[in-house]
Amino acid sequence: MSKKTKNKSVNVNNLDKNEKSKTTKDSSKFKIVFGVFAKIISYLFVIKALFTIYCIYLVYVSLTNVPDLPKVDVNVRWGVDNNTHDTRIRPYRVIFSDAMESEIRALFEDYRLMERKIKSFKNTAWTYGVHSDAFAQFFSHWIFKYKFRERVKFLNKYDHFLTNIQGLDIHFVRVKPKADKNVKVVPLLLLHGWPGSVREFYEAIPLLTTPRPDYDFVFEVIAPSLPGFVFSEAPTRPGLDTYEMAIIMRNLMRRLGYTQYYIQGGDFGHMIGSHIATIFPSEVLGFHTNFPVNTSKLSLLTWLLGGLLWPSYFGNGIEDRMYPLKDKMEFYLEETGYSHLQSTKPDTIGIVLTDSPVALGSYILDRFMIFTNHTNKFEDEGGIDKYYDFDKLLDNIMLYWVSGSITTSLRIYKETFAGSRLNNLAQVPTSVPTWALRLKYELFQHPDYMLRWKYTNLLGSTNLDYGGHFAAFERPKDFSDDVFKAVKAFRNFK
Amino acid sequence: MSKKTKNKSVNVNNLDKNEKSKTTKDSSKFKIVFGVFAKIISYLFVIKALFTIYCIYLVYVSLTNVPDLPKVDVNVRWGVDNNTHDTRIRPYRVIFSDAMESEIRALFEDYRLMERKIKSFKNTAWTYGVHSDAFAQFFSHWIFKYKFRERVKFLNKYDHFLTNIQGLDIHFVRVKPKADKNVKVVPLLLLHGWPGSVREFYEAIPLLTTPRPDYDFVFEVIAPSLPGFVFSEAPTRPGLDTYEMAIIMRNLMRRLGYTQYYIQGGDFGHMIGSHIATIFPSEVLGFHTNFPVNTSKLSLLTWLLGGLLWPSYFGNGIEDRMYPLKDKMEFYLEETGYSHLQSTKPDTIGIVLTDSPVALGSYILDRFMIFTNHTNKFEDEGGIDKYYDFDKLLDNIMLYWVSGSITTSLRIYKETFAGSRLNNLAQVPTSVPTWALRLKYELFQHPDYMLRWKYTNLLGSTNLDYGGHFAAFERPKDFSDDVFKAVKAFRNFK
Repeated sequence: MSKKTKNKSVNVNNLDKNEKSKTTKDSSKFKIVFGVFAKIISYLFVIKALFTIYCIYLVYVSLTNVPDLPKVDVNVRWGVDNNTHDTRIRPYRVIFSDAMESEIRALFEDYRLMERKIKSFKNTAWTYGVHSDAFAQFFSHWIFKYKFRERVKFLNKYDHFLTNIQGLDIHFVRVKPKADKNVKVVPLLLLHGWPGSVREFYEAIPLLTTPRPDYDFVFEVIAPSLPGFVFSEAPTRPGLDTYEMAIIMRNLMRRLGYTQYYIQGGDFGHMIGSHIATIFPSEVLGFHTNFPVNTSKLSLLTWLLGGLLWPSYFGNGIEDRMYPLKDKMEFYLEETGYSHLQSTKPDTIGIVLTDSPVALGSYILDRFMIFTNHTNKFEDEGGIDKYYDFDKLLDNIMLYWVSGSITTSLRIYKETFAGSRLNNLAQVPTSVPTWALRLKYELFQHPDYMLRWKYTNLLGSTNLDYGGHFAAFERPKDFSDDVFKAVKAFRNFK
Repeated sequence: MSKKTKNKSVNVNNLDKNEKSKTTKDSSKFKIVFGVFAKIISYLFVIKALFTIYCIYLVYVSLTNVPDLPKVDVNVRWGVDNNTHDTRIRPYRVIFSDAMESEIRALFEDYRLMERKIKSFKNTAWTYGVHSDAFAQFFSHWIFKYKFRERVKFLNKYDHFLTNIQGLDIHFVRVKPKADKNVKVVPLLLLHGWPGSVREFYEAIPLLTTPRPDYDFVFEVIAPSLPGFVFSEAPTRPGLDTYEMAIIMRNLMRRLGYTQYYIQGGDFGHMIGSHIATIFPSEVLGFHTNFPVNTSKLSLLTWLLGGLLWPSYFGNGIEDRMYPLKDKMEFYLEETGYSHLQSTKPDTIGIVLTDSPVALGSYILDRFMIFTNHTNKFEDEGGIDKYYDFDKLLDNIMLYWVSGSITTSLRIYKETFAGSRLNNLAQVPTSVPTWALRLKYELFQHPDYMLRWKYTNLLGSTNLDYGGHFAAFERPKDFSDDVFKAVKAFRNFK
């Protein structure tokens, strides 16, 4: 050690003395102050880091927490008369009577779509909603080409029934297959959504009820109308959400003698089917969904963060259907006005849609076109000529019209989204074997790993490069093929 | 200095040697490592603090940034025929013809509000939207007690005119006062919103056009229908937002010979009036608003932060109308479904509402009741018996009905909220003297200090402990009194 160093070292406690320049002195003072400051900051940093970890832990616990299922009352009553317990299964027929036809034709004549006043803008396609030109085309089919008598015959080609479940007359279509003894007949509950109906399944039903060479089973189809939809009676008091509908659908299957069965659902039908699988896992042999979403908080957060951080990784093969986040958010904002209104003021918009077939037709048509392919809104006339024949769409609209059930159907939004049960149920996993069918333009869809958080036995999934929200209605063949494939997997799994 | 110290000091570079216990050695090592760590953390802390300050500065700049006004083209044309330049002011009369009455009565007869099917739930008041019982009451007044002939006479009690502005026939009511020479007649532009019309001002007009003892001025009233509303022609192409409407309204006043005038507005009328005051400040002598909001980003953020931090301070006297934040957010979510739909799909809901008077009536009634007093939804039958006589409400609905203008009126939502101009204009202050009238149940309202960020010469404000969104319609006397008071202040200020 040099002498200089030694001297300095010796005088380590006397640095303030005049051996150093003033600058050095100030600098040392600064160093001391800074040292204390640094220590405090560092302790704070450590505390904050620990606190952050603790917060992340709390968030994780909250996201993965499995709440108790809401209390199940399988005998709750929803009807006007809750004392009679009628267990009959009564045949039913769809009726388009002469009086009904006269009524709707009178309203057609009064059609007030005055060209001058509500002509949509040129070259805006469907960006302002239904374009008046496209609607005029659709309407002229309804008034001039839609054959009421033929169509009602078509609608009655399957057997319809009513039976009273929990005080409500529930309508359903039931189709038994013609099958040899060596082909096992298995029951399949088909659940529609809004603004659909049993009509969605008409093309798929023969494909599901006809035996196939590669399969040793075939389906008996039970396709009910949800309570308040079409010919199923609506409740007379609030509270009939998708959770309660799940109980009613399960009780319907019991009434028909099935204690175990398969379920297929899309839209609200997905939610209800998912609830049945969650509440009564031992009764559901398998769940096929064409609305492949997991609505849990963890899933929502993953979708959001994934979009910000690494879409291709989090999208896991279907990133083009989930991201870019900004586009998706804008899309959801633009396309959820109907849901916002229906979730808050169902009766207002219900009165509005009950009084005019034109009103009802245009409102439902709007949703069918956008949900089938959201790019339709940039097509001349909304692409209405491309995806459906008009009779199909009108059958579905007519079922709502003749039953005057649009208001009660809308209430499913308010009952379901205003409550907290939906979120609770999304947090509870189910072990029922599940299969996901993803059509390209489905509004919401999640990859397998996210679905597995809810459906722990997701046995497989199918991605189609075409099609939209109404799988059975749009693509009956792909739909039926996939249901067969899925149920085979379910049966092998058991 | 003790020998020990000296030794230690001397050996400062040899601390690793065996002069100290292992514990001390380790502790020293820790101290050094911790010291380095602390220094790094502290530097990072300082950098982060500076960065945070910089970010806050950027946010502040962005919030208080005054953008350029959008380019003003006062000659842009909106009509079908944009070559003729007709500057006549043509008399106009409201007509409820026999044919119109037959048509609406035929539709009344076809009224499909089937009791069984769309009966609203008992004891839910208006929480599901318009209650069917309340609507039945309202409807029976329409069909049995509303005297078409008397009402159209009433609607024609003031002089109506049409004049072509920028290619569109604009409808307006104009009422000149009977005043002595010593009373100055000043022009007042009254601007309505949605779903209102010129009918909103019918009770206030005589109060505004009659001289008062304490005032040396009286009003000549010009109340136009906004483009696309009622008898004002709608544009044939997209883009006519509130900004463009402001230009049309200003040009209307020029057509009538006024280069300087007062403006009163609520709802969209507030926005349009505010835009005129912002774009043409030298032409507006004063701006009276009964929709006292500042829609700038700074204002929105202040409202949000204020609600989280210190509602009573940020509310500045009207905190009960702005907070609690949670309640307000829930309220806005519940009550903006109509706006969400109209901002995205105006033509869809437009076709729906054009075809049935029942549809139109219930949809508009819903908004009138909630906006008048949002607690109406918890009242039996929505309080419809408490606030208005039905004739008043029906007059307004009839104006939309006979003109078939509901679709074109709805487009104001899409044009305005889909664009970016609204936000830009909110950021630009105006020096036009301003006065705010706050009715208790107005949906959105801000305290004076927030209004002053936009209206730098806010001369005063009035808070009423009653009333709602439709000031002139609900409280014509309070409304007129306040306009007189405000204009006196404007005149003294000049």
